Amino acid sequence: MNEEISIKEGVDISVSVVLDKIKGALQGVERVVSSRSTLPILNNVLIRTSKNGVEVMATDLEIGLRFFLGGKVEREGVITVPGRTLVSLVNSLHGDTLSLESKGNILQVSCGETRASINGMPADDFPVIPEVEGGKVVKVKSEQFKNLLSQVDFAASGEDSRPVLTGVYLIYDGGTLTAVATDSYRLSEAMAKDKLGEDFNVIIPARTLQEVRRLVGEAAEFELRIGENQIMVITDSATLVSRIIEGEYPNYKQIIPPTSETTIEMDVQEFSDAIKTAAIFSMEGSNTVRLNVAASGLVEVVSESSQVGNFTSKLKAEVKGPGGEISFNAKYLLDGMNSFDTPRFTLGMTGKTAAGVFRPSGVEDRLYLVMPLRS
Amino acid sequence: MNEEISIKEGVDISVSVVLDKIKGALQGVERVVSSRSTLPILNNVLIRTSKNGVEVMATDLEIGLRFFLGGKVEREGVITVPGRTLVSLVNSLHGDTLSLESKGNILQVSCGETRASINGMPADDFPVIPEVEGGKVVKVKSEQFKNLLSQVDFAASGEDSRPVLTGVYLIYDGGTLTAVATDSYRLSEAMAKDKLGEDFNVIIPARTLQEVRRLVGEAAEFELRIGENQIMVITDSATLVSRIIEGEYPNYKQIIPPTSETTIEMDVQEFSDAIKTAAIFSMEGSNTVRLNVAASGLVEVVSESSQVGNFTSKLKAEVKGPGGEISFNAKYLLDGMNSFDTPRFTLGMTGKTAAGVFRPSGVEDRLYLVMPLRS
Repeated sequence: MNEEISIKEGVDISVSVVLDKIKGALQGVERVVSSRSTLPILNNVLIRTSKNGVEVMATDLEIGLRFFLGGKVEREGVITVPGRTLVSLVNSLHGDTLSLESKGNILQVSCGETRASINGMPADDFPVIPEVEGGKVVKVKSEQFKNLLSQVDFAASGEDSRPVLTGVYLIYDGGTLTAVATDSYRLSEAMAKDKLGEDFNVIIPARTLQEVRRLVGEAAEFELRIGENQIMVITDSATLVSRIIEGEYPNYKQIIPPTSETTIEMDVQEFSDAIKTAAIFSMEGSNTVRLNVAASGLVEVVSESSQVGNFTSKLKAEVKGPGGEISFNAKYLLDGMNSFDTPRFTLGMTGKTAAGVFRPSGVEDRLYLVMPLRS
Repeated sequence: MNEEISIKEGVDISVSVVLDKIKGALQGVERVVSSRSTLPILNNVLIRTSKNGVEVMATDLEIGLRFFLGGKVEREGVITVPGRTLVSLVNSLHGDTLSLESKGNILQVSCGETRASINGMPADDFPVIPEVEGGKVVKVKSEQFKNLLSQVDFAASGEDSRPVLTGVYLIYDGGTLTAVATDSYRLSEAMAKDKLGEDFNVIIPARTLQEVRRLVGEAAEFELRIGENQIMVITDSATLVSRIIEGEYPNYKQIIPPTSETTIEMDVQEFSDAIKTAAIFSMEGSNTVRLNVAASGLVEVVSESSQVGNFTSKLKAEVKGPGGEISFNAKYLLDGMNSFDTPRFTLGMTGKTAAGVFRPSGVEDRLYLVMPLRS
């Protein structure tokens, strides 16, 4: 933003833009705009016009988003208005062109036979969305990156007690990009070969990466800049800046069992169905489901609750090893199955206390680890 | 239910049914089953087997639903089990046939390689769903009835302060079936010619009629029995019993203005779009939108809020009469427009204090009345 500081703030804007383009930009920033922040300016989006076109920005202090669009600029200026109101208004309009004109802190929106005025606030109070200058710069293929993240981000922690666990750990080393997330009850790791240039490792908030996945949706590739405290994602039409999570990611490799006593191969859909149904009988308690693995090639999915009743489903499996019983949280199993895109999967187990190691069948660079429950 | 009292209660059931059929029956009763009633038996569904097949019942004391399905009955008996558990379980099963067997208060459910036991309760405590004997009996065409109700039931009151207004008033008189609902702020009336036989009038809870609309979804016609305190809806596979709302329906005809000073004809979609957008600017207050009607053929839709801003949209209209301004609650206007299925509508108005009379253009037997707001 700094390079544009020459455009005087507080000057009224006047611009016409293509309605569908500004709809796109506003939908892009919408999820970052607060609706009821105690800091009222965070409920606002900033609109800035310059000779290059229009910028639409929003930030929640963790993530900053900036969209660029072309337009017929008549006056260069800047204003902020409540994001929810502007998004609702613009989304409900029909037509080709939208005009935005500000007078002091009031934004006038015109489209066809519709005129609206929205009460805004001066841009001076709007937080500066920092640029990431320098740092490492890599080009990332969107589709592969989104695919990698969707396999791990659900396993990040939703609780702030250990901040590093709320992030996804990204490591690029020797041509392989690895993504890892864990909430300490389960861990997901996925890898992909890629040519990104410089090696790096960084912990990015899982929430940021959800926004990145949306942002880069249609672009074939994007630029990722990794600074000291921030990352920046740059596409043709938008920029996202987010903080990096500081701290050291746990040495997760050491908790992955190197071998398993028993390996079970099963159908993903059949197993998911059985777990989902079993969970009905354990929902009110710990969500525990037990697997009784028979060496003869049968897995019993069992759950029980003194209040509700009990459940057993028998599934065919290929079992190598002695088998045994092991219990898991049903939700963690389902999260894993949902992230697999193969028809079958393998589960490696060693007794009832070692972590279960789940992998999509035939996929080497993917791992989902779940800690067992006592039962 | 009384005619089957010869089947001894408390006897264990044993039956096999087609899985899809019992899924249908359970989905049918699901919305009537409480999830957390203070009367635990109301959380349950009752399953009764007899030589005729299987009955599945649920009641919330206002509405009772009973589904019938065929099955291979091995033991006649009855049991009740928590509805949510049974519905979730059965919905998540795959296969052709489901077996239900009870031992005391435990229901055993088997399907393929899946076995479950659900803890139930004796049927003795289950409320009797009354039969409506005698009364008036009419055959109703489902499609026309559902269509009639969908035009009025949204206007019934959601508040219990005047119980008759929580119902839909149905009058059959001289070959015309009329349905009316009002919450005293707006009123909707729809009529259809039909040959139902006996004349009647009855106030039925709006919620009951929503269930009736679902229940008779696929049947071409159904039987409606109107008793003294209850109505009964009978289809090939199910029966619904509901209380009637006692009391006298207000003499609503007297509040319908016989003529209007100004008549405005507009496009339903254009008007809906403008009202929806205008509402963004009045949502935090009274939801008021103002119409400025110019005799020259223009309607301005206006809304304003000192906090948010203001909005004006100009719509073309055919105006007959002097015009003027009138304000309405935006929600009531949108409800009305959503219930119209013509491309255009007329609004009759007489000054700013008389009720606005909305009609789908070209439809004589339909009326939607909205009380104006002061503005």
